[in-house]
Amino acid sequence: MPFCIAVYDVNQKRVSKMLKLFRRYLTWVQNSVFEGDLTVGQLKQLQLEADALLQDDDGVVFYQFRDERYVERIALGTDEVNRTRFL
Amino acid sequence: MPFCIAVYDVNQKRVSKMLKLFRRYLTWVQNSVFEGDLTVGQLKQLQLEADALLQDDDGVVFYQFRDERYVERIALGTDEVNRTRFL
Repeated sequence: MPFCIAVYDVNQKRVSKMLKLFRRYLTWVQNSVFEGDLTVGQLKQLQLEADALLQDDDGVVFYQFRDERYVERIALGTDEVNRTRFL
Repeated sequence: MPFCIAVYDVNQKRVSKMLKLFRRYLTWVQNSVFEGDLTVGQLKQLQLEADALLQDDDGVVFYQFRDERYVERIALGTDEVNRTRFL
């Protein structure tokens, strides 16, 4: 399943809505950073919903990977996701 | 060249040092998120320097990709990196 990292930078007024939206689809990593496995359809849906919330200078960036086997994840210090294996 | 995304969540006291360190190696995307191409040696060096700065509940996560051709990057709204192509 495709692996996705998503980060947002939005006005304080829209942070709670954005957080709620992203938590529905992905795992919270830290601050405004999320990761997880999404189907192509789920990812399109998340992008549509995020786009509808954006105003002014708000921005969201998605990094998509065809397969999580191509990703190596290294955490230093505190890791909220607390994975014990490389992806 | 390997492509890398790095995110940090550190105490306010160490934000400016961390920002300065990450800017030396990577391109700033938004908030505490960076991306860029690094050799394996550069990445190891960055990880060593970041690890030396971490205290208490500070955390850094690196996502490494063998090849940026495996990554598709989609930006909605404002994009500081302002890339006009997919990776």
